[in-house]
Amino acid sequence: MSRSFKELLEQVRTCEKKTLSVACAQDQPVLEAVKEAHELGIIDATLVGDEDKIREIAASIHMDLSEYAIIDVKDTVEASLTAVKLVHDGKADMYMKGILPTKDFLKSVLNKEVGLRTGKPLSHVAVFEIPGIDRLLFMSDVAFIPYPTLDDKKAMINYCVETAEACGVKNPHVAPLAAVEVVNPKMPATVEADELRKANEAGELKNCVVDGPLSLDIALYPAAAKEKGAEGRPCAGRSDILIFPDIHAGNLVYKAIGHMVPGVQQGCMLTGTSAPVILTSRSDTKDVKVNSICLAAVLSEHKHKA
Amino acid sequence: MSRSFKELLEQVRTCEKKTLSVACAQDQPVLEAVKEAHELGIIDATLVGDEDKIREIAASIHMDLSEYAIIDVKDTVEASLTAVKLVHDGKADMYMKGILPTKDFLKSVLNKEVGLRTGKPLSHVAVFEIPGIDRLLFMSDVAFIPYPTLDDKKAMINYCVETAEACGVKNPHVAPLAAVEVVNPKMPATVEADELRKANEAGELKNCVVDGPLSLDIALYPAAAKEKGAEGRPCAGRSDILIFPDIHAGNLVYKAIGHMVPGVQQGCMLTGTSAPVILTSRSDTKDVKVNSICLAAVLSEHKHKA
Repeated sequence: MSRSFKELLEQVRTCEKKTLSVACAQDQPVLEAVKEAHELGIIDATLVGDEDKIREIAASIHMDLSEYAIIDVKDTVEASLTAVKLVHDGKADMYMKGILPTKDFLKSVLNKEVGLRTGKPLSHVAVFEIPGIDRLLFMSDVAFIPYPTLDDKKAMINYCVETAEACGVKNPHVAPLAAVEVVNPKMPATVEADELRKANEAGELKNCVVDGPLSLDIALYPAAAKEKGAEGRPCAGRSDILIFPDIHAGNLVYKAIGHMVPGVQQGCMLTGTSAPVILTSRSDTKDVKVNSICLAAVLSEHKHKA
Repeated sequence: MSRSFKELLEQVRTCEKKTLSVACAQDQPVLEAVKEAHELGIIDATLVGDEDKIREIAASIHMDLSEYAIIDVKDTVEASLTAVKLVHDGKADMYMKGILPTKDFLKSVLNKEVGLRTGKPLSHVAVFEIPGIDRLLFMSDVAFIPYPTLDDKKAMINYCVETAEACGVKNPHVAPLAAVEVVNPKMPATVEADELRKANEAGELKNCVVDGPLSLDIALYPAAAKEKGAEGRPCAGRSDILIFPDIHAGNLVYKAIGHMVPGVQQGCMLTGTSAPVILTSRSDTKDVKVNSICLAAVLSEHKHKA
């Protein structure tokens, strides 16, 4: 079980090496991350995009392109479709966004012929390693579904459980979060959290323990759970997975942790696809991108075994 | 201008000494905080409640009760009404919850004859000092109004502005937060954030600069604002006041910061009342309670001057 990104990297190294397909790879931050992940022995990569620009950037960052496959496609939409098709056809294991509009990247992911559709909702899993917490935390949805329905939240839980399992966490503890830990009909988020608990109890949500609503302190900190008399709740102080009421709550917490907590490590993936998809933002550091590639690699291994 | 709780304490010491009225003061954590605030020279206090128990606890924490007024009222509801009436009648400057149910404490605050009603909505201001951020941050509402209306949010901004002014922050920058920094009709929180900006532009929200919607990183970090091309926005990287879309977003961020950020300092107050009201939770540390008393004291001074 990987309790940190360092341990996750060790875990990835025990897996078969994965191949990453990059759409519009002519982007320095993305190439730097691909180079580092390759040097760490995690991946090989196929770089799809403007070959001249890829070669120019690679030279400037001392990246030896003889170790990578390159497919020269200048048009961004065509490049994305070429890159995603490699994954669709099983010639690559995971798909990463380079320098193209997110909208166009998502269109390629959802393309009916060459994309990675599953018929399930697309969502997003963010993974954090937070100093003082002795395990990885999996959060959804902080970036993709604005106001998830109950069904969306069930899908979000399944994606997080799959990702946690890929990281070696067995039967993870899931906390649908709210401001309070009791069901209040005037607060729909608490009612939905309770519905998710019931769906788990009824066997609809498998391979996990769901207990909501929980406040963030009770979900994560045994001492807080005890102070509030909630230490007997199944996920109190031991949650692995945090499900947010909506994107505002999720994104604001995500940004607060990412910016305010010293020493935090993070990575993320798009989920609901047939193969792992890496969609980091330009402002993410190289570490975030490399961590995300690690996550995608263990998830790919997990999907192959399943 | 106080940029930290330490500076706030210095500021309080330049004010006339305030009197705190405590409802059901027979509570060790509350008495410890009152003792420390008194020793720091911030307050005198009237302790209303079960005198025997107050004396017993005071003895155990070496608190010299000859320096305090005590009113012996054993019944909790009666004690709260006695304590709040002292503030209502101007015999004390601020009101603090001791050991009684929050519901009963709030009933005393809202009592028509002896309470502190203003006709405006009750809300909550949390104040944070976060390492790496060079000023105090004022947040609302993380604990009181579940789903604030647009009018509630206007009131929340006014309360935060008043609190910031009391701390010496002139014309504070206000960020109504959301997951994104652009208005999207499908995300009501962004539309409301824009309405608040317009209300400020139209002169309805005074003595502040409102700019929303903003994401948390753009609101607080100049580098993030620049990366996202938002550095020209009036509150980008310099927000003093953060307004949350709803209580779930607010409370989850509040808990994340409070539990995960080393070295954080915080305090809070109930707002919308005619005098400052301190309603900390049992799990708050003594520092949080003392910081909250400091905040109430500067706000009381500010209200007297206004």
